[in-house]
Parts: sequence; structure tokens; C-alpha cells
Amino acid sequence: MSKPRVVLAYSGGLDTSVAIGWIGEQTGAEVIAVAVDVGQGGEDIEVIRQRALDCGAVEAYIADARDEFATDYCMPALAANALYQKRYPLVSALSRPVIAKHLVRAARQFGAATVAHGCTGKGNDQVRFEVSITSLAPDLRCIAPVRDLALTRDKAIDYAVAHSLPIETTKANPFSIDQNVWGRAIETGYLEDIWNAPTKDVYNYTDDPAYPPLPDELVIRFDKGVPVAIDDQPVTPLQAITELNRRAGAQGVGRIDLVEDRLVGIKSREIYEAPGAIALIAAHEELENVTIEREQARFKKQVDSRWAELVYDGQWFSPLKHSLDQFIADTQRYVSGEIRLVLHGGRAVVTGRRSAQALYDFNLATYESGDTFDQAQARGFIEIYGMTTKLAAFRAEREGDGIDFGIGDL
Amino acid sequence: MSKPRVVLAYSGGLDTSVAIGWIGEQTGAEVIAVAVDVGQGGEDIEVIRQRALDCGAVEAYIADARDEFATDYCMPALAANALYQKRYPLVSALSRPVIAKHLVRAARQFGAATVAHGCTGKGNDQVRFEVSITSLAPDLRCIAPVRDLALTRDKAIDYAVAHSLPIETTKANPFSIDQNVWGRAIETGYLEDIWNAPTKDVYNYTDDPAYPPLPDELVIRFDKGVPVAIDDQPVTPLQAITELNRRAGAQGVGRIDLVEDRLVGIKSREIYEAPGAIALIAAHEELENVTIEREQARFKKQVDSRWAELVYDGQWFSPLKHSLDQFIADTQRYVSGEIRLVLHGGRAVVTGRRSAQALYDFNLATYESGDTFDQAQARGFIEIYGMTTKLAAFRAEREGDGIDFGIGDL
Amino acid sequence: MSKPRVVLAYSGGLDTSVAIGWIGEQTGAEVIAVAVDVGQGGEDIEVIRQRALDCGAVEAYIADARDEFATDYCMPALAANALYQKRYPLVSALSRPVIAKHLVRAARQFGAATVAHGCTGKGNDQVRFEVSITSLAPDLRCIAPVRDLALTRDKAIDYAVAHSLPIETTKANPFSIDQNVWGRAIETGYLEDIWNAPTKDVYNYTDDPAYPPLPDELVIRFDKGVPVAIDDQPVTPLQAITELNRRAGAQGVGRIDLVEDRLVGIKSREIYEAPGAIALIAAHEELENVTIEREQARFKKQVDSRWAELVYDGQWFSPLKHSLDQFIADTQRYVSGEIRLVLHGGRAVVTGRRSAQALYDFNLATYESGDTFDQAQARGFIEIYGMTTKLAAFRAEREGDGIDFGIGDL
Amino acid sequence: MSKPRVVLAYSGGLDTSVAIGWIGEQTGAEVIAVAVDVGQGGEDIEVIRQRALDCGAVEAYIADARDEFATDYCMPALAANALYQKRYPLVSALSRPVIAKHLVRAARQFGAATVAHGCTGKGNDQVRFEVSITSLAPDLRCIAPVRDLALTRDKAIDYAVAHSLPIETTKANPFSIDQNVWGRAIETGYLEDIWNAPTKDVYNYTDDPAYPPLPDELVIRFDKGVPVAIDDQPVTPLQAITELNRRAGAQGVGRIDLVEDRLVGIKSREIYEAPGAIALIAAHEELENVTIEREQARFKKQVDSRWAELVYDGQWFSPLKHSLDQFIADTQRYVSGEIRLVLHGGRAVVTGRRSAQALYDFNLATYESGDTFDQAQARGFIEIYGMTTKLAAFRAEREGDGIDFGIGDL
Repeated sequence: MSKPRVVLAYSGGLDTSVAIGWIGEQTGAEVIAVAVDVGQGGEDIEVIRQRALDCGAVEAYIADARDEFATDYCMPALAANALYQKRYPLVSALSRPVIAKHLVRAARQFGAATVAHGCTGKGNDQVRFEVSITSLAPDLRCIAPVRDLALTRDKAIDYAVAHSLPIETTKANPFSIDQNVWGRAIETGYLEDIWNAPTKDVYNYTDDPAYPPLPDELVIRFDKGVPVAIDDQPVTPLQAITELNRRAGAQGVGRIDLVEDRLVGIKSREIYEAPGAIALIAAHEELENVTIEREQARFKKQVDSRWAELVYDGQWFSPLKHSLDQFIADTQRYVSGEIRLVLHGGRAVVTGRRSAQALYDFNLATYESGDTFDQAQARGFIEIYGMTTKLAAFRAEREGDGIDFGIGDL
Repeated sequence: MSKPRVVLAYSGGLDTSVAIGWIGEQTGAEVIAVAVDVGQGGEDIEVIRQRALDCGAVEAYIADARDEFATDYCMPALAANALYQKRYPLVSALSRPVIAKHLVRAARQFGAATVAHGCTGKGNDQVRFEVSITSLAPDLRCIAPVRDLALTRDKAIDYAVAHSLPIETTKANPFSIDQNVWGRAIETGYLEDIWNAPTKDVYNYTDDPAYPPLPDELVIRFDKGVPVAIDDQPVTPLQAITELNRRAGAQGVGRIDLVEDRLVGIKSREIYEAPGAIALIAAHEELENVTIEREQARFKKQVDSRWAELVYDGQWFSPLKHSLDQFIADTQRYVSGEIRLVLHGGRAVVTGRRSAQALYDFNLATYESGDTFDQAQARGFIEIYGMTTKLAAFRAEREGDGIDFGIGDL
Repeated sequence: MSKPRVVLAYSGGLDTSVAIGWIGEQTGAEVIAVAVDVGQGGEDIEVIRQRALDCGAVEAYIADARDEFATDYCMPALAANALYQKRYPLVSALSRPVIAKHLVRAARQFGAATVAHGCTGKGNDQVRFEVSITSLAPDLRCIAPVRDLALTRDKAIDYAVAHSLPIETTKANPFSIDQNVWGRAIETGYLEDIWNAPTKDVYNYTDDPAYPPLPDELVIRFDKGVPVAIDDQPVTPLQAITELNRRAGAQGVGRIDLVEDRLVGIKSREIYEAPGAIALIAAHEELENVTIEREQARFKKQVDSRWAELVYDGQWFSPLKHSLDQFIADTQRYVSGEIRLVLHGGRAVVTGRRSAQALYDFNLATYESGDTFDQAQARGFIEIYGMTTKLAAFRAEREGDGIDFGIGDL
Repeated sequence: MSKPRVVLAYSGGLDTSVAIGWIGEQTGAEVIAVAVDVGQGGEDIEVIRQRALDCGAVEAYIADARDEFATDYCMPALAANALYQKRYPLVSALSRPVIAKHLVRAARQFGAATVAHGCTGKGNDQVRFEVSITSLAPDLRCIAPVRDLALTRDKAIDYAVAHSLPIETTKANPFSIDQNVWGRAIETGYLEDIWNAPTKDVYNYTDDPAYPPLPDELVIRFDKGVPVAIDDQPVTPLQAITELNRRAGAQGVGRIDLVEDRLVGIKSREIYEAPGAIALIAAHEELENVTIEREQARFKKQVDSRWAELVYDGQWFSPLKHSLDQFIADTQRYVSGEIRLVLHGGRAVVTGRRSAQALYDFNLATYESGDTFDQAQARGFIEIYGMTTKLAAFRAEREGDGIDFGIGDL
């Protein structure tokens, strides 16, 4: 009878390298290592594959998911101007579902009934992985060796040494880091004292905005909410993000320092760098200002906000997220045109916008002679628009309640 | 029988100086000029009072409303982190209701049945003035000489010359400007071409962020959402704003360039400068992140957003605004503590926060040994938290609908 | 040179019959009468067409829009469970856009640049007609003879007599009535005293619920939110509504008496009858309870509510309404199955539901032995789910603020 | 050294009677029984107290909390028109926090560090109890013998017999029932098949609406949202609810049959009876229609909905609930006046309303001559109100996108 099989989200690092053998020992299962490239950089994915096999994996599944991640995960986030707590562009929260999808695919391909991941029991990512996985494949079971099989850091080091695993055990990064195409997240260490300012060694995607190079001006062309050209050079979503990570990163754009509400009920302090994401969102929001009708734009802010909460909360594959996507997609129909952006010293500033689909109408807006706005309509508008508050005011006066409206001293 | 009386919102400028006589001629009424100082700077208010009388006003009512404006209008906006379209801190929208209140007070004091203001018929401010006024005194009537009595710019110049009014008629500012303690708004002119970048002459409250002085670090202490000390020096709300206008303005913080949805249905392009407001909101939002419970914070974002829309839309004295204020006030109970802020090169960056009322709990959040978070609870949480999407996933699988969740290729 | 042309929304009644000639006299235009059957009953549409021509119309355009109205207007309202102020199923509000669409089509067909309608200047329908028309054909102009050309009731009677128009002028209905397939609206007269109860003569679609026939049980089958069979007989949307109007009407279901907030800022008192609509919404809502995931359902309530407000407010063809439709359509994917309904004495009560797409899971829900719910997960769930309020409680205790949470006497 | 102490939510029934001894055996603790009268009827509370002592409790704490429950829990629910999923008036969800409060008080009084309750591990009430308790006293620990100490029904019967506990062990109710002043909840048994209609034996608070007595007309007077008189007889909140339970119950008002989304992620089928609650909410909602300004009313619907979700979800003592209460309280300032209600055959129908604080204005609303509404304002209003959609329509036309707005065939 064949052994049960587990697919493991494999990073190539110490914890998951040890987990290959550890899971085997603890559960009697064979381990298939799954490594998904979402732009985290670092080692070559072929090196990672070989290490997985050297550490005892019976199979190694690798995928270059960078384009998929940029197109199917980052672009919807851009359409939603997604910033959790108005600040965090969902860097890790976006990558978990795409990794989960490949884990499920690997589980199907290699006949595994269990998925393992390297998360601890107090973060968001365990929830994102497990909820994403069961939302795609509700029959699969999830385990987390660190949380469920007592795989501590010390045990991992001992195990790696004892088994001569081909993985470094000495480097102890003071921070916990996760990075991908859309940005980089840094936490723990001295940052856990929220009065401490971040130090320079925290950052990697961005240069110090205090010492910027000369301003960098560029024009981004969008088609239906998606960047399609930079300075008239056609780009894919991945290229757009990568190019802007480089150029906005050089200007120190997109550093974020935030106390954040985790899904598991605690507040934590996080540092993020997301130069491309922040620059793209700034451009996209302003193009929306030019092309989206007012009431649609107002309601979209609520939808965007709920979208970001849901994705942060691990509900990428949930029915509500799917329905919000339909709303958002419909709003992007006319979000086409060009945004001129100046990147400099930590700022991504829109300085111009043009769109054949603009609702901005010079002839209505201008204060020069020859405008087409009929000012005589305003009196009727104000009279009826102000009717409900005026009636409430008559009542307040009758009831002697003016005081509560701050007019007690009239 | 006595003449009817009109109170006129008087700025001291050409249009309203001419309006004093113009209203008299067109309507047979006596005019009382009302000048309210909300920090717009410029001429001394005594000079303005004398000019009103010289131009024919039968009375002149002046009020230094700067502290009132800062305390009763700007502080609630800060509590609401009020940014219309996520960007505009409601500079003019906040000043209209306080001016309206003084206009109503003057109308009561001098027995006027009509209030006049200098707005045109295509902007927001006519609505804000008139709805605010009828929300305080529903029996008062409003007129706008420019909109209703055909007082064009050319006629105003001719009238001023013909009557030798003590007011300059030559200076034609290329922009339309409104400014007060909370910020400065600039529109019209070449800015109406939304592809044009603003030029340096547009700005007055802020220096160029591209050439900043050395970084300026400060600590703001808040008590229940209100700034009460800067670098341990006690401040009033007005002092807090003024001090930060100076220090953040020197660093070029708070420049905003926006295509905006007006209440009267058109889009317009606006430039704002609000160094103090933007720096205070950045600090206040982060202190909320540290001290407000997650679900309260999430719902507050909706309330804040509706608050900003209402105030933008001229509904300061409306019943809904009043009820939203009660919600917001309740959320500020624990928004006390200190925020360290670095101002530099257009950025206002929070680098530290501390609060005796923080919900951030180091012992729960830390990844060091000795933390108090019980990771064993996570499995049960995830199982039940993910239940509804898991059930939906079983159904999708049964119905063969995986494709729509992006998993068609599994 | 040819005369200008006006298309007129023509009901066949006194006011619009007179309007044909009146518009001609007042504006010099030729009038094309447009009559759209949305199930208002009354005279045959051919009779109405002939009367229009007899009254001087140069053309008469008639359309049987009952199926179109039921399918494209009532079914989306059902999907949205649309009840303005939680009560009013948008009877007139739904018919205005479909009539507007035919008016625009007629205007295009007959080369008219103006659309006329019979509404007064204080109701919602003028706004709904005009905003719908300019949302479809922004170049068209709208006029309302009653409001804009001083066509009062008395003048209409005089005009009809003087010109021997083939229309009765004596019958003065004490109420203002509008009716269609989706329901019937009654207002004015003694109902304007909101302390008066409606009398029996107000009603026409419903029998008195106080004296009902025997209970009427039926089973409605839905497919993706749309009723497709009643008691196993296939039905079109129009048939479903008509059949339920008859059967629920006989039981007195769907009488509504409401003080309502009009779009033009005043409150008015309205009586409605909508037996079919109310019965269908009751059934549809319960099928949603069975088939829609919790968070999707919660957010949908907000979307439904905004949808109803928008449609009430005349924004059927607005961009936001279009985007909300995409959201709603996506939620209906699994709203399929059967609802058993008992109609009796004014009540439409769901007594059973079954669906192959149900998310209700007997094995999870049952309290009998053999259930599949793992109760051991609950402790972990509660611990983490309750974490944020527990942390807030520690703070409240520390701050001595228990009193505000109603626990001062502990 | 003294034994640890546990306070136990004691109902007097089999499970909690056995739990007294069971907890002692399993944990070594002394048990204090706490019985709180929220109007559940049944045995005298003194009988319950004695039974607790007879079953081995070291102390018994009893409280008549009916007035407290009606005033402090049901009245806020009425102000919020609280209906979870638009149907369920939160019967059990409201009583859990008041019971929790007394449990905490008893724990403090008797020096207990643990609170026990009789809930299972798959319902909402375990969450409501535990989250309420830790929100009042975050240091207390919670246990549930049924869930945590393996106290099954069979074991309970065996234990009761073995220890000769003074409690009946034979009666096996086919349903699980919870009832209090605000209503009654019935679940499980054959109701778990959601196609089954409820049978008559399910109901106790309501008579069959199919055979009603003569109609019952009454007038309820409200003051700031709270019922203060019925037919001119002053009433307390408790009296108002009790009186309406009796009169509306006799007419079969308030039966509810619902598939509901539990907090623990599953759907369950519930029957409720809440004659008083449903009649009061019908009256209160219509008085709000008459007295609350439109935009305040629209936003309040969102707040009401979130309030009901939070209370359903066990968050009565949460910070967000507290802030929503401030919003709601402010909206009730003018919700005063009288509602005439006819109760008959399952229906609670408002037939009249009058209020000195009404915003309904006969002179504005009437279509009789002499009305004060200035219809000439409507054109200006419509022009500006419809501006944004008109501009969007010009664009759609330009882009050839009319089809998507349903006008492809024009």
C-alpha cells in the first residue's frame, strides 16, 4: 500500500527544508516540495528544486508564477486601489492565494490529501493559506509543522545539522521578511517596540528618500484600469510593476510603517516597501477621478475598502470577493488614458492626466467666458437639495434645539 | 417705514465691495457687511471694516473666528480624518459653515431677512453657504449678486471706477484662491487644462519639497483625538495647526493636485496646500491604528468617508452629520498618546507611537519566546472562520464551477 | 422648413389628451403621442392610439412593453429584493425607465428633439423621466406641460370642452393613481392627512385580508433568482407576476401604507398594492437565505438597499446602477430551487425550501447524533474571535471605564 | 486552602442541574448557581434557587432582570429596528449579555475565577456568553460542561438518577427552546428538514393567525423612540412588550420561519415567535419615517443592520456596538408621537401616525391648491441633479456603448 502524500509550500530556507524530513518522520507521509516564484528574488528556482530533492522530497514542483501573479492578482488589487487600513498594499496577502492555487494543483497532480505550509500560529498567513486551499479544494487537509508538529527554530537547526541538510543554519536575520513582485514586508525584532523608528538596514526595495537622484518624470498609459505602456513603451503588468519598482524605488517611494490589525485579533507593527504598487495606485486613483461618475466613485470606495479587508482576511476565493470583482470590473470600463507622474524624494505625484473617456468637461468647468454651465439652474437645485435639512431646521427651531447644532449663541 | 436689510459676506475685495452698492441699487435694501477672520491672512480686519463702511455699508460686523474655526470645525475634521476623495482636507468646505453662522448671527442682530454672498452659480460654495444658512435659520432668504443680480467682473470694475470705491480694480489674479487656517485652495486659469502641471507661483503655504531644509522631527501629543502638545509645549488647536502649517509647510508637505467631483455635478481641477492638516491627519490616523479596536476602526472608515462627503456637500448642520459626530466622538475616547513625526521633503512620516491606551500588546505580538498568544487556538479558529467559504467551495466543485474562481486549470 | 417635433408620453387621459394641442399652441411643435403598455390595464391600447390622433397628434407610437417590463425591470428588482424604505417595491419607479426608453426610441424614429411628459413639479416621476431620458439620449430636451406650460386641471377641462376633444372631463377621481404589472400606487386626497386610515375604495389589486378565502399553498421554482415555474407549470416572468397578483391579491397580500421620503425633499404619504411583488420577494429572500454565503449575503443587503434608493431616485440608467447590477447578478448564480409559500389573510409565508445548491447542510446543522461539526474547534474560534474586544475590555478596566459599558454596578 | 469557585448559568433544567455536581467532580471546584429571570416563564425562581442548592450548589444567586432586560436591552434593539437577516428580532442574542452581566457580578461577589454555561459547541450562544463575559471581565475563564467536559444527554440522565437529583429526566422535548420577554426561539427536531412546515405544537406565544378574533386597534405613544403609553395608559418598556405580546400574540402576529447564518459558519433553521417585538418595530419604523430626515434615515439603515449583526454575533459589549449606540440615540431625539396600529390575523398594520415633531408637512405635500412647494425650482434641480449621469451618457454615446445600458435597439 502506498504512503500518504503531503505537498509542502517550500521556500528553500531552513524551516521548510527541515520540514520535508520532519513531516515524513512525524506523519509517515511522503513530501512533495512546491516552490512558486512570485518574484521573491534570491536563489534560482532550479537551485531550490534540487535542494528540496536533496532534503528528501519525493518530487519537486516549481512554477514561475510571476506573470500570473502580476496579471491575475496585482492588477485586480490595482483596480481596487487596495490598501488595507488605507496604507498596506496587501503584499503577502496577494501572494498567498496564487501559491495556494499551485499547492492545490500539485496536490491533485501528485495525489496528496494534505497541504503543509511553514507559517506560525499567530499570523495572518496560516489563515490565508488554509482558507484559500479549502476554498479551492475543500477536501484537502492542512498542517503547519511549526504550529502543529512542534518544529521550533532550535529543533530545525539541530535537525539540519544532524541530517547534514544542504542549507545554511547560522544566519539569523533579525527580521522576518516576505517579498514578491508587489512589495516587501518586514516585521519582528526591535520593530516590535512601536516607538522605535525603522533603521536603514530594514529596506531593500527602496533607496533613502532623503537623498534622491534628480526627479524622474514618466507617463503611464492605462487601458480599462490596467497599465499598458510607460513612456509609450508597451508593458505587460509584470513589466509595469517591475519597471516602477526600479524607478520609484530609486526615489524612495512606497515606504510604509504601520500598526496593523491582524485577522487573528492582535495588533502588530509592520514595515512595507512597495514602490511600484504605490506609484501605480496613485496614478490609477487619479485616472479614476477623471473618468468615473461621482456616485459610482463614492460607492466604489466602500467596495474597494471591503475588497482590501477580504483579501487581507484570506478570502481571495470567497463568493463575496468574486461578486465585488464584478462590480469593480464594471467600473474600469472607461478607466483609460494617460497619467503623468513625477517620482522624487519619496513622493509619486500626478502632474497631468488626459483621457478620451474623461468626464471632466473643460467647457462646463471653466470660469472663462463661453462656458456652457447654466448658472440659473443653481437656485432651483439648492432649494430642493437643501429642502430636507431646512425642514429639520424649522423643527429644531420650534423645539428650541438649536443649541445642539452649535448655534446656541445666536 | 424702514428699508429692508441684507447682510453680506464681505471679503474686502472688488466683487463684494461693489456688491454693497449694487445690492442697494438692485433691491432697495440697506447692506450690513460681515467679515469673518478664519485665518485667510491678507489685510487687517479693521481696514476691511472701514472699507465696507466707505463703500456704503450701513453697518460692519467683524469677527475673529480663528480659534472657533480651529476648535469647532477643524478638530472634528481631524477626528474624522476627513479627506474628500481620499485627498482633499475640506479647506473651504469647513470654513463656509462657520462664516454662515456669523452671517446668521449678524442677520438676527441687525434685523436682516436676507443674506448675500459673493459666490458664482457653478461652484460648491453657493450651496454650502445657502444650505448652512437655511439649516440655521430656515426663514432667511439668500441671494448671490454675481449669480442672481448679474454682477459680472466687468460691471464690477466699471461700477468701482464710476463710484470711486476705495478698492483696487487692476490686479487680475490668474487664479481663484480661498485660504484659511486649515489650508489653501487654488483653481481656474491654466489649471483648467488638466494636463498642465501646476507652476511654482501657485503655492504660498508650502515651500518646494524638492529643495527641503534638514529633516524636522517632532512629537505630537493627542488627548482624545485632539492635539494638545507639540514637543511637550502645550498648544491650542489653533496653535497646533499654525505651528504645523509653518513647520510642515517649510518641508513642502501637503500639496495636493486633484480632479474633483463637485456637488453641482461637474468635475473640476483643484490645487490645495494644507501642510498642517495633512501632517495632523497622518499622525492622528496612526494613533487610531494603535488605540482603536479593529471592527470599530473598520466601520469608522465608512463613517469618516460619509462625514467628508456630507461636509463637502454643504451639510455641516444636517441631522446626519450630527449623528455621525456622536459616533466619531465615541471612538476618540482612547485616541490619546504621542506620535513622533518626521517632516522632510514633502513627506510627513510617523516613526514612533506610544500610548497608555494602546491596544497593541507587545507580549501578544512578539515573536520572541515568552509570548502570551496561544497558537493552539488557531486551528479551531481557522476551521470555523473558513467554514462558510469551504461550504461554498464544496458546492462550486459539485456544480463544476471552479473555473469562475480562477481555478479552471487545476 | 418643417416644424419641430415633440414626443409626448400619452396615457389617454384628460391631461395628456389636452397636452397634445396645448403643446402645439404653446410651442408651435407637432406632437407624436407615445403610449406604452406596462400593464396599467384600463382601455385598449388601440383605443388610446386613435384618441391621440383624434386629439391632434401627427403620429401615435404604441408599444406592448409588458414582457419587457417584467423581464428587464421587475426581475432585476426581485434579484435586489428591492424595497425602498424597506417597504415600497418601486412600482412607478420601475416603469418610468422603460417608458423613457420607448420615448427615446420614438423621438429617434420620428425626428423629435423634445420629450414631454405629464408630471407635476413636485413629484419623483418628473425626475425619473427626465434623468432617464437624458441618460439615454443626452441631447434631448424635456418639457412638462403641467409644470412648464401652465396646463392646470381647470384649463385642461376648458380646453377639452372648447375643442370637443373625445375625452371625459367630469370624472374627478379623489386619488392620484398609477398602476402596472408590478403594483399600484395611490396618493393624495384625504390620505394626505396621515392620521386617516385608508378606506376600502382605495384598493383594487387586493381583496380585504380580513375576510380571506381558504389558504392557498403553492411552490415557486427559481432558476438563478428568476421564477421559472409555479406548481410545476413553467412561467415567464410576466406570467409569474400576473399569476401571483391574482392569487396573492385574492388573499389581500401586499397592501402597504407608508410615509415616504421623496427625491424632491419632502415626505409624502403613499398607499401601494403589490401582491405579486411582495409574495415573490418573500420567496426569493428565503431562497437566498438558503443558497447565499453569509458574508456575500451581508454585503448584498447594502447593495440591495443602495440599488433601491438609486432606482427610486431615477437613476436606472446610471453607471452606479449598472455596476450594482453586475454584483447582484453574480450573487444569483446559485439562487435556484423551490420555495413553498402559503398565501392567506394578507400573509405570504414561506413554509418550505429545497435546493440542490443549498449551503444548508443537515449533517452540520443537526443536533442528532452523527453530526459532522467538530465542536472541539469552538474554543479556539471563540478565543481568537473574541480577542479584540477582550483586549479592549482589559483597557476599559484599566481606565476605570466599565461604567460606559453598562457594568458600573458590578 | 479554599477551593476554586465556578459560577454556573443555571436554568433549573436537567443539564445544568447535573452540571453542578459534574463540574465539581471534573474540576474540583465549588459551584455557585446563577439564575436570571428575563421572562422565560416556567417555574418560580425560588423553586429554581432551592433546586440548585439541593443539587449541590454552594450558593445560589437569583435576579429578576425583566425590567432591566426590557429597558436596557430590548429598547435599544427597538431603536435599531433590529432584525437579523431582516427577520429575526434577536430574542436569544439579546438575553445573553444581560445574563452574562449577572454572571460576572456573581463571580465578583462570590470570588469565582471561572464562569460555566450550558451551551453546546456548535451554536451562537456559547460565543455570545463567552465573548460577553470576557468583554466585561477579561480575566475570567469560561467553560461549557457539555462541550468541554463531555457531559452528554445520556450521561446527564444517568448522573441525575444515580445521585437522585430533584429533577425530571424523562421528558424529552422534541425541540430546543429558548424564550424571554422579547420572544421565543424553537429549533431542532423535524424542523431540521427545511422542507417541513412547522406544526402547530411549535408555537406558544402566538395563536393561529388563520383563526383570529376581531381586529384589535390600539394607539402607541412613543417618546424619543421608546413606547410610553398604549391607548393613553402609561407603560414601562416591560409593560409595553408584555401587553403587546398578549394582544399581538392573540392575533398570531410575529411568527417567523427562517434559515439563518450562524456565527459559527453554518446555516440553521429557526422558528421564532415575537408578537410584541414585531408589532413594536412596525410602529417604531413608521414613526421614524415621519420624523427622521431622509439622509439620516438612509444611513441609519446601514447602522441598524450592522448593529443587528454585531449583537447576533455576540458583540453587545464591543467598542463598535457602543459607538453605533451613540449614533442611534442621536437619531431618536424626535422619534416621538403616536402610531395607530391594527392587529389582526397575523398582521400588525399601521393605519395612522401623528407627531408634533413630524417632518411631514401637509402644505408642502398636498396636491390641493394653496400648497407651498415652488414647482418652478424643479427644472433647475433636475438639470443639476442629473448632470453626472448625463455626462456619462454623452460618453457612452460617443463610445458606442449604449448597448450595455439596455438601449442597443434604439
